[in-house]
Amino acid sequence: MTSSTRIVLASRPTGAPTAENFRTETVDLPEVGDGQVSLKTLYLSLDPYMRGRMSDAESYAEPVEVGETMVGATVSEVIESRSDAVSVGAVVLGYTGWQSHAVVDASSVRVLDPEKAPVSTALGVLGMPGFTAYSGMTKIGQPKAGETVVVAAASGPVGSAVGQFAKIKGARAVGIAGGPEKCAYLIDELGFDAAVDHRAPDFKDQLKAATPDGIDVYFENVGGAVAKAVLPRLNLYARVPVCGLIAQYNDTQAPEGPDRLPGFFTRVLTKSLTIRGFIQSEFVPELYKDFLRDVAEWIEDGSFRYREDVVEGLEHAPEAFFGLLEGKNFGKLVVKVA
Amino acid sequence: MTSSTRIVLASRPTGAPTAENFRTETVDLPEVGDGQVSLKTLYLSLDPYMRGRMSDAESYAEPVEVGETMVGATVSEVIESRSDAVSVGAVVLGYTGWQSHAVVDASSVRVLDPEKAPVSTALGVLGMPGFTAYSGMTKIGQPKAGETVVVAAASGPVGSAVGQFAKIKGARAVGIAGGPEKCAYLIDELGFDAAVDHRAPDFKDQLKAATPDGIDVYFENVGGAVAKAVLPRLNLYARVPVCGLIAQYNDTQAPEGPDRLPGFFTRVLTKSLTIRGFIQSEFVPELYKDFLRDVAEWIEDGSFRYREDVVEGLEHAPEAFFGLLEGKNFGKLVVKVA
Repeated sequence: MTSSTRIVLASRPTGAPTAENFRTETVDLPEVGDGQVSLKTLYLSLDPYMRGRMSDAESYAEPVEVGETMVGATVSEVIESRSDAVSVGAVVLGYTGWQSHAVVDASSVRVLDPEKAPVSTALGVLGMPGFTAYSGMTKIGQPKAGETVVVAAASGPVGSAVGQFAKIKGARAVGIAGGPEKCAYLIDELGFDAAVDHRAPDFKDQLKAATPDGIDVYFENVGGAVAKAVLPRLNLYARVPVCGLIAQYNDTQAPEGPDRLPGFFTRVLTKSLTIRGFIQSEFVPELYKDFLRDVAEWIEDGSFRYREDVVEGLEHAPEAFFGLLEGKNFGKLVVKVA
Repeated sequence: MTSSTRIVLASRPTGAPTAENFRTETVDLPEVGDGQVSLKTLYLSLDPYMRGRMSDAESYAEPVEVGETMVGATVSEVIESRSDAVSVGAVVLGYTGWQSHAVVDASSVRVLDPEKAPVSTALGVLGMPGFTAYSGMTKIGQPKAGETVVVAAASGPVGSAVGQFAKIKGARAVGIAGGPEKCAYLIDELGFDAAVDHRAPDFKDQLKAATPDGIDVYFENVGGAVAKAVLPRLNLYARVPVCGLIAQYNDTQAPEGPDRLPGFFTRVLTKSLTIRGFIQSEFVPELYKDFLRDVAEWIEDGSFRYREDVVEGLEHAPEAFFGLLEGKNFGKLVVKVA
């Protein structure tokens, strides 16, 4: 019988999550049933949305219950199979969460081709974060040649894909990131036209200098102070795909006034702005095949680059996750589990 | 030589405009040049957007300069013509503003057919307000059968068209208006499914009762307290065309906190909302012909009704305009000038 080491939600956080909100357990897994596979986790993806799952506030997805295994996408090796569709030894993408092993229905996993790309990319550039960027830009951002696209958390998996997508479409890509090292990476490695350090005291002036013609697309994945500086620079007919608000996830109450919402609506009106929230799953039926084809091609021809921040050992997942919420990772954060 | 009595902007208002912000003058008009027409104003349209033109805050249109005639759409009779395209006696739609007479290029007016519809409708249901409703609902609101559409200022020219458009598309129409008389009109005359009085002390509860399945389209033309009650009731994938914010036009500063903007973005994200500001002119090239055809047909078959609130005499325009900003008009507000 296989056992699994897993990290469960011990309690719901108030504000920033801490180590006390997690608990590690070891459990015996059930027998592998008909049509099922037993998996050994190779990589676990850590993503900002997981903060939302720790809370029971109404959201687009059900929260993780206290005592349940934390959810998450994984890349795993099949160690036992009672399915004709998936063989032992295959590497698969699944959603088995923060644990070392799992038994799941074979229909819930997708077999990866390790020849095509490193398997961990199925959690990043060729997975959910990459598709968030691709679908949000294709359906909502719709950058045109010569327009200016701004994205924050720009060295992360979504932001870096957004900027490179903008470049491929002929737009000017401006990335916002924390610290000079990440900013240099945006320019030197990813080909952004400008990079702005949101930690710099003159952040607002830097942003202004980097967007002399205003902003046509703001890909919103952070909120907070960055959004506050960006929104007044939006041009007529600007588009704002909203896929995340990491800077606000730990907020426990609305910030002090004045109330900026009425003024924001005035701006929406006078600039004919489009603000559109989305979760990438909305666009999977329509766009996922195009995404896999296009991004694989762009990686091959060098127009799409990515970076991974690999943490070793499942036991370090909580700490790595806290760092993610503070912007400490550099590239797509994955935990090497096995 | 013809003279014109005109109302000019005497000074810019702070907060609500007052009589002191206007001044009446009589001026001699120039000779009618080649390709020009001389017009006698029959009807002047009064619309909320005019409040924006009185201020020099950045907006989608240039402000009226102090000392200039207040702008506005008009229906006029041609009293002299030096254009082959427009004959003396014709009734035309123009943009000659708050004045009794004007000399303009014939190319700037559109000849109306008084047989087809009362000429004043070119300022309302068959004009800019009607097209604001038609284009905003066609391009952004996109109501589907069975969905719930909410609109405020619902007895006004835009709101009444929005609700009736929703009904034609098979959606449930909920109107918000000020006072029981207007609410009764929405149900009894316009065929709305429900009406909610925003002046009632239990407004929020009334709104909740009128929208048991939440709200799929909120056509935003008021902002303020109404928007505050509506926004939390928006459903997944709800659309919010934003064409006006009359409740906020006289605001001189941002309201006190808490700051609701971050929470609003959280709602945009978790509900995959679409917020889209627009000015009807954006959609004129694409949709104006369809609009004239469809609405004329709907008026004829009885599925589209409208109401006018006619004020006699140009000298009463300022007072009528102040009332408009307070919701005192009942139906499309026009001034009968000649």
